Amino acid sequence: MKSLIFIGLLHYPVYNKKGDTVASAITNFDLHDIARVAKTYGIQRLYIINPFRDQKRLAQRILDHWLKGQGNIYNPVRARALELVDIVHSLEEAIQDIVERWGYRPKLIVTDAKMHSNCISYPAAREMLCEKDTYLILFGTAWGIAKEVMDRADYILAPIQGNSNYNHLSVRSAAAIILDRLLGDNR
Amino acid sequence: MKSLIFIGLLHYPVYNKKGDTVASAITNFDLHDIARVAKTYGIQRLYIINPFRDQKRLAQRILDHWLKGQGNIYNPVRARALELVDIVHSLEEAIQDIVERWGYRPKLIVTDAKMHSNCISYPAAREMLCEKDTYLILFGTAWGIAKEVMDRADYILAPIQGNSNYNHLSVRSAAAIILDRLLGDNR
Repeated sequence: MKSLIFIGLLHYPVYNKKGDTVASAITNFDLHDIARVAKTYGIQRLYIINPFRDQKRLAQRILDHWLKGQGNIYNPVRARALELVDIVHSLEEAIQDIVERWGYRPKLIVTDAKMHSNCISYPAAREMLCEKDTYLILFGTAWGIAKEVMDRADYILAPIQGNSNYNHLSVRSAAAIILDRLLGDNR
Repeated sequence: MKSLIFIGLLHYPVYNKKGDTVASAITNFDLHDIARVAKTYGIQRLYIINPFRDQKRLAQRILDHWLKGQGNIYNPVRARALELVDIVHSLEEAIQDIVERWGYRPKLIVTDAKMHSNCISYPAAREMLCEKDTYLILFGTAWGIAKEVMDRADYILAPIQGNSNYNHLSVRSAAAIILDRLLGDNR
């Protein structure tokens, strides 16, 4: 039996360049690219987590364009990905939504560009996801997920290593690579 | 010995939604996301291939902002990726640049969301890249690389399979996943 897997894209609490805890702005391309990756890899829902009403309204307008407006006429395939998106104000609201609609409290897997002493490897995480369970994989925006959320995690995924010491992927690229490592067929 | 690996992002000739051969517009996020992936995976150069002078000028303005302008002050780490980018008017110009600067004519590896009868698998391609040789991996924009270029390829990579029948990743996500499959350490 396969796990139920959810994704969250966290805009608060995250760090800015100076290490302050901030709320980041929603990026249009994050919605599109990550929703398309989510649809490709059989993810149940993509939660866009942002506490600001204006930001949530902007994201909803983008979604409405592609789900109900001209975007749906121009490219209906895009709608099949974007219909996975829910815009919520907090991580707690995302977790609560999963509990209410699917009946399970998800285990929290967080991602980070930094190595932590208790990281789980990709092969180990891939095997874990094959057991029947419920997981929320959390990606951070700006300069990464704040410690208070990292501390709540059940698992921390190892950072992505390419074959250089450059370690500054966009969250869109990181999400694509991570879901492929965990769920792709890797032919 | 490791191969020399180059990437090209092709804006002409590509297909539009109706299957006509067109030149597509350059997307700002493609430059950033794919350059950062290229830097992460030790790629030599990223060629942005577009025949239109206005489009090339726009891309150069974006690069200049991050390499020489305020962008470099705000985020110098971004410059380390974007300095891999060359803007050229044709695939032939990209190949010629590799020949002139590195001394080798690259083998052409093309990517496509569709399956071809003579596709090379990721494990086979990964092994091939470990031999000392020179490769140009070509990604298409819009609805994919035109047949005239596909026909010139030495190798066609298998399409990315997630675990659904949805097959509409952004080129940014596809490039990230493909370079990770070919060159990542996959821990």
